[in-house]
Amino acid sequence: MKGNIVVGQSGGPTAVINSSVAGVYTAAKKLGVEKVYGMVHGIQGFLKGELCDLGEYLYDDTKIELLKRTPSAFLGSCRYKMPKIEGNEAIYEKAFEVMDKYDIEALFYCGGNDSMDTIKMLSDYAAAHGKRQRFMGVPKTIDNDLPITDHCPGYGSAAKYIATSMKEIIRDNESFGIEKPTILIVEIMGRHAGWLTAAAALSKGDDCIGPDAIYLPEITFDMDAFMEHVKHLAATKHSVVIAVSEGIKLADGTFVCEIGHASDFVDAFGHKQLSGCAALLAHKVAEATGLKTRAVEFSTLQRSATHIASLTDINEAFQVGHDAVLAANEGKTGMMITLDRNGDEPYQCGTSAYDVHHIANVERPIPAEWITEDGRNLNEGYLKYARPLITGELMPLFVNGVPHHLVRRK
Amino acid sequence: MKGNIVVGQSGGPTAVINSSVAGVYTAAKKLGVEKVYGMVHGIQGFLKGELCDLGEYLYDDTKIELLKRTPSAFLGSCRYKMPKIEGNEAIYEKAFEVMDKYDIEALFYCGGNDSMDTIKMLSDYAAAHGKRQRFMGVPKTIDNDLPITDHCPGYGSAAKYIATSMKEIIRDNESFGIEKPTILIVEIMGRHAGWLTAAAALSKGDDCIGPDAIYLPEITFDMDAFMEHVKHLAATKHSVVIAVSEGIKLADGTFVCEIGHASDFVDAFGHKQLSGCAALLAHKVAEATGLKTRAVEFSTLQRSATHIASLTDINEAFQVGHDAVLAANEGKTGMMITLDRNGDEPYQCGTSAYDVHHIANVERPIPAEWITEDGRNLNEGYLKYARPLITGELMPLFVNGVPHHLVRRK
Repeated sequence: MKGNIVVGQSGGPTAVINSSVAGVYTAAKKLGVEKVYGMVHGIQGFLKGELCDLGEYLYDDTKIELLKRTPSAFLGSCRYKMPKIEGNEAIYEKAFEVMDKYDIEALFYCGGNDSMDTIKMLSDYAAAHGKRQRFMGVPKTIDNDLPITDHCPGYGSAAKYIATSMKEIIRDNESFGIEKPTILIVEIMGRHAGWLTAAAALSKGDDCIGPDAIYLPEITFDMDAFMEHVKHLAATKHSVVIAVSEGIKLADGTFVCEIGHASDFVDAFGHKQLSGCAALLAHKVAEATGLKTRAVEFSTLQRSATHIASLTDINEAFQVGHDAVLAANEGKTGMMITLDRNGDEPYQCGTSAYDVHHIANVERPIPAEWITEDGRNLNEGYLKYARPLITGELMPLFVNGVPHHLVRRK
Repeated sequence: MKGNIVVGQSGGPTAVINSSVAGVYTAAKKLGVEKVYGMVHGIQGFLKGELCDLGEYLYDDTKIELLKRTPSAFLGSCRYKMPKIEGNEAIYEKAFEVMDKYDIEALFYCGGNDSMDTIKMLSDYAAAHGKRQRFMGVPKTIDNDLPITDHCPGYGSAAKYIATSMKEIIRDNESFGIEKPTILIVEIMGRHAGWLTAAAALSKGDDCIGPDAIYLPEITFDMDAFMEHVKHLAATKHSVVIAVSEGIKLADGTFVCEIGHASDFVDAFGHKQLSGCAALLAHKVAEATGLKTRAVEFSTLQRSATHIASLTDINEAFQVGHDAVLAANEGKTGMMITLDRNGDEPYQCGTSAYDVHHIANVERPIPAEWITEDGRNLNEGYLKYARPLITGELMPLFVNGVPHHLVRRK
């Protein structure tokens, strides 16, 4: 590669999105790239010419190691979607102007569905207007809902956090219930795909029975059947733990979290802000049974708990960033790096580059064959798929008892 | 010690309450005690004769290590308060009957204020009725509100979890806010004492500014001043993070979480169930400012996240259990083991035994001199006190990517 490169981070951060930046930086330096720039707050900051020089931060290996252990988006993120090209040519020209100013030959963008759309739009514009720059997508999403790739960097760490926390609060719930059952309802992220909620099943082992039921957004939620099942569980066990996705919906399309209270917030991509469905269900169960019922929301911690990140995930996040640079160096553009699984036992995974047109704006749900027949749990197919992704640990660097992070000067 | 002993766990579990059981067991075995029994679900199960033989589980050192890494109450917990002696002699006689049946010479109870009351009542009854048994309290509470002792086992690990999670979500919040500030309100446990909420301040370091404000239950909450302060912060920074105790109250004594909705649940000790104050404040802030505002509740995870327990805390929890047995062996009864700090740098801490009559039912708030003058943060006095308590890590034993636990057969 002759020129410089730039890397950006977009959308909801993950525990390992910085490891992808470390991968991009490391590969570029191996190839002799002079300057590796970072977009400050993604494409939104980039369009305003807000860049930083990553070399000022990653000047030795310990800094790269620290970046891999730093949660959230080191460069800053954004939720900005590139507008359609027609009528917005000035915005695209501005992007290329910034690239020319910094002699940027390739642009790397870490993100999910919406971010891959940015790569598609920029590479389409470049192709249509004879621009030299290359554009590569680096997959990142705790939601694990990108198509083509076997899984998405960010998912393994979120799943490890969810499985670990689920197991710890199942343990907590089991310590009571001497006279009456105690019921715990845990709300897990995932708007349309149940990958994160499914991770609750990974708490199962010979020392833990896992949640008693897992309600995925892939399955229509039936309130009556739910109440019946909870009552049945409460009649047979002293500790009842239920995992529900924030995105569960009734047959008429209503989100459960919207029942009884308006939730009209939408984010910059037009997605509804969901939350509160565990609280609502816990309230209903308490009313119907008179039993002690608690609601827990894992919330933002699912995407930011780098202290319990999966080593497999950290390494793969690094790899997709690294390999995106190699692909761009080979002349590829308008593609995303995918993770291609070659085996489960032992787990093996490689990468390749795939046309981003088949990836942007497509969401992949959990395969129906991994959901148990009653629709309330995951089977061995899912566990075999997910277990390797949460394997391994990378100890944080603790200072004064808390993990230390690498931070950008503001 | 000639006879056997029994150990029980009571109240809300902690990340390290099992380490105290490991300490009791280890000391008893060193002293040649034949049987170490566990109360199944605390004094409530004990009164029904529900005991288990700890020797069946802790038969080698690896099992003791695994117990130290297991969250929640291995033996099961309860929220049962011994009734006043007068008129309830039959209940007390039942307790001594069970002790005689199993040749129990000393009873150890791990818990907080309410559990120390159980030790007081049983030892008072024994003294009044010439019973031979001894009764020792083993301190345990994430709330850190027991008097006399420098701090309580369980607090350090909860504080480490809170500080780490707070830092990770501050990082997450900082990644947005390119155009408008994003406001995050985090709700932390602690009914009357702000020790847990104060731990949010431990997220501060040269890589993190910590929360912008910390609202403790020790300080009367002024809604207008709060709204003014948040507006001021939002006008000056792009990421605003506020920590609030679940127990903050208005000047008229109303809990903030009770404003606008009835919360009439009380637990078995008569305490009100609090929650939802971050959600309420976030709603008010969003209404008043139009800014994106989120609420996070750390909830039960604060007391169950053994995967990030403090090694200092694990060791001290072990020590107080261990030393309670030594004290009983010396003939002491009706006492609780306290942690006595001898120095900050380097941190040094010993133990002694203290009359439980001065401990039971007394709550210790945060000293006023550790709260900043504006009432919205903690100063160096607190940080110096708390930092040693969250120091050190004990790696969980990971199996299939999640921490493995020791479990009791049901």
